[in-house]
Amino acid sequence: MSEIPYKIYLEEKEMPDKWYNVRADMKKKPAPILNPGTLQPVTKEELSGIFCSELAAQELDDVTPYIDIPGEILDFYRMYRPSPLVRAYFLEKKLGTPAHIYYKFEGNNTSGSHKLNSAIAQAYYAKKQGLKGVTTETGAGQWGTALSMACAYFDLDCRVYMVKVSYEQKPFRREVMRTYGASVTPSPSMDTEVGRRINAQFPGTTGSLGCAISEAVEAAVKNEGYRYVLGSVLSQVLLHQSVIGLETKAALDKYGINADMIIGCAGGGSNLGGLIAPFVGEMLKGENKYDIIAVEPASCPSLTRGRYAYDFCDTGHVCPLAKMYTLGSEFIPSANHAGGLRYHGMSSVVSELYDQGLITARSVEQTAVFDAAEMFARVEGILPAPESSHAIRVAIDEALKCKETGEEKTIVFGLTGTGYFDMVAYQKYNDHDMRDFIPTDEELLSSFSKLPKIERKGL
Amino acid sequence: MSEIPYKIYLEEKEMPDKWYNVRADMKKKPAPILNPGTLQPVTKEELSGIFCSELAAQELDDVTPYIDIPGEILDFYRMYRPSPLVRAYFLEKKLGTPAHIYYKFEGNNTSGSHKLNSAIAQAYYAKKQGLKGVTTETGAGQWGTALSMACAYFDLDCRVYMVKVSYEQKPFRREVMRTYGASVTPSPSMDTEVGRRINAQFPGTTGSLGCAISEAVEAAVKNEGYRYVLGSVLSQVLLHQSVIGLETKAALDKYGINADMIIGCAGGGSNLGGLIAPFVGEMLKGENKYDIIAVEPASCPSLTRGRYAYDFCDTGHVCPLAKMYTLGSEFIPSANHAGGLRYHGMSSVVSELYDQGLITARSVEQTAVFDAAEMFARVEGILPAPESSHAIRVAIDEALKCKETGEEKTIVFGLTGTGYFDMVAYQKYNDHDMRDFIPTDEELLSSFSKLPKIERKGL
Repeated sequence: MSEIPYKIYLEEKEMPDKWYNVRADMKKKPAPILNPGTLQPVTKEELSGIFCSELAAQELDDVTPYIDIPGEILDFYRMYRPSPLVRAYFLEKKLGTPAHIYYKFEGNNTSGSHKLNSAIAQAYYAKKQGLKGVTTETGAGQWGTALSMACAYFDLDCRVYMVKVSYEQKPFRREVMRTYGASVTPSPSMDTEVGRRINAQFPGTTGSLGCAISEAVEAAVKNEGYRYVLGSVLSQVLLHQSVIGLETKAALDKYGINADMIIGCAGGGSNLGGLIAPFVGEMLKGENKYDIIAVEPASCPSLTRGRYAYDFCDTGHVCPLAKMYTLGSEFIPSANHAGGLRYHGMSSVVSELYDQGLITARSVEQTAVFDAAEMFARVEGILPAPESSHAIRVAIDEALKCKETGEEKTIVFGLTGTGYFDMVAYQKYNDHDMRDFIPTDEELLSSFSKLPKIERKGL
Repeated sequence: MSEIPYKIYLEEKEMPDKWYNVRADMKKKPAPILNPGTLQPVTKEELSGIFCSELAAQELDDVTPYIDIPGEILDFYRMYRPSPLVRAYFLEKKLGTPAHIYYKFEGNNTSGSHKLNSAIAQAYYAKKQGLKGVTTETGAGQWGTALSMACAYFDLDCRVYMVKVSYEQKPFRREVMRTYGASVTPSPSMDTEVGRRINAQFPGTTGSLGCAISEAVEAAVKNEGYRYVLGSVLSQVLLHQSVIGLETKAALDKYGINADMIIGCAGGGSNLGGLIAPFVGEMLKGENKYDIIAVEPASCPSLTRGRYAYDFCDTGHVCPLAKMYTLGSEFIPSANHAGGLRYHGMSSVVSELYDQGLITARSVEQTAVFDAAEMFARVEGILPAPESSHAIRVAIDEALKCKETGEEKTIVFGLTGTGYFDMVAYQKYNDHDMRDFIPTDEELLSSFSKLPKIERKGL
């Protein structure tokens, strides 16, 4: 085969030592996040009541292009990074495509995904601030697992509110978190006011992500020495995740490869935003041009069918409002096995890049996603996460287009993680019992009608 | 920290292109395996009825030191190899030991363990021979998963007989196998004579590994174009697994590191035998000296408390007899969560090396193993398989001895895989509900009394 190895591993000394903040190079910045009480841009002081101070600063910083990665975080990164950029020789052969396909694989760590890149950063800043611990919510459990690992490393208390239905139906993720010393509480719980209220109002409820967020925020605010942390959507998270894109770019450059197309799945936008950051940076500076495709599930199509508007980031309406492509904070996506992509909105950075036409978006249906996942698993040997498989689907589609046209495009996609804790979904697929769900226009219009009415000139 | 990187990855061109057959350098060879009918050494022709011809030849070859790895297998190896040799900086720091600890991590592939190294070789030779497919048994499912992946790659039919209790209680491993296209049948089934007989004799039985082996062998023998394959114990498997040791040696040599001690968990002996092969080879040639420790569960102590005698490899007594350290083929180890170490015997190669005093053995109890697993997971970031954690336990014990003596020993251990499908065991541990089991002397004596009476002069 070619001289390009199957897996390009950077040497440790070639790893990035700075994160890249793409907002700094955007002429039109993402709109500011708003205090839900005053509807005015949130200040660092206000944010610092919920988040660690340093993270609050990162959240609001849209001018500093490069931010040093602290040494302690670099040490931890070396535990599982650099992640490989894999040349998908076997997939190319299977498809018979002239395209060159690469994927950046973030699943080679026990959290099973890229979430660890930001979890360790957030835990570090919490420790540095002298906090006792952090609180968070988790649905399927990937973020909770990553945060548990990060907190174990820094000896921080980690309190995870896990949506009750997941807590009961996905005991294995829960046990991974417990092994890392986290306390995992089924939400709604009786530990918080909001939990008790919801339990009283809806006896026997199995919980929701929105409720779990509200409990985690309450627990952070009411407990001395705690702050709340979140694994996606926020600009600080995209900043930390830029390590994915920076490594990808460095690996491509090392072998003189120029990407034509970059593809990533998009839920809250943390992986996509991180993967594309340096490439978008080049586009913003007029240095290069890439086709960038965000892939979302047809069941939760925030970019392709959502509105670009200010909305609540959480269903409990306790977090700041962000301007983003959204389906409405009360939109409940139909059952889709890619739990990490079932978010009603999209990171404000990704939303603004999409609005400026720097990236495009595509929605794909679940069964087609698992068709791609199965093929990928069989030829490339990695059983992919359902979320990641959205990107695989579109990468395969694009490679097949190249087969028709004869184009030797270089396609890079983000393989965010492994599906080892998603076997219920694979079982449905193996049993031909998987269904596709697409919201109707009426459902979306009804949801849009509940968007907050906020008129802010120029935003 | 030091100049040794956290993870030593060989370049693809530095990967071994030959397996090493340690038997060739042993003056006193392992005793020949015997035909269970004639009690004479098995011939290649006899073996070829059950195994692929090339594998039968490898099984009996104790004179050829190096065997070329076919190009197709090398290609597949490049999908997930070289595996990293990791410097356990974080563990060293946690322990405060002057020892230098390294581990060879075989879990970065979807089968989650080293089993894939031999599965792909066995599938390759089956394909080359023009077979339609292979049959095998699986207990916990690691071997079955590896074989499914290998068969998917070569488009071979893969029929797995899975112990019924595992089939029902571990549906996730089963679904991974199905995703790779394998057919998975709960054993005892109604597909085979032996399965029907056992179902009739023991209605409602949940099966055993011995029964599953018998069904898999019957299915191979009775179906045109099928052969039986096995994931451990056999000398051919140890040959394929030598890739682990060869890579480890090459990585150490690359940085001028000399190991003092090599530690591996031992069930059937496939991982240990592969890891230590080139190091033992140096000892056999008088070129170097290593402390080599095989670690087994106290609940299934074949090396530390077994007899060195000819015994059946399977409880169904259909496979050849091997001379090995054994607890007796009817010994049923008490519940231990390291399913991969619950085998009554030990590879005849490892047994002979142990008998010659080239390696030592140690048995450890389950709770102490999970104590080590938890510590390792928290500081090194990888949630280890229960099997692998046996080696971690002893590596930690030895590093703590160095702390007392001040010795800067270099300790290398094999981290065979990840524990993502073993969370039931971790849950028991997290809930402080784990129990240790040690067979009594009476139990072992009773089992030894049922060893086959075979007198073979000089063996």
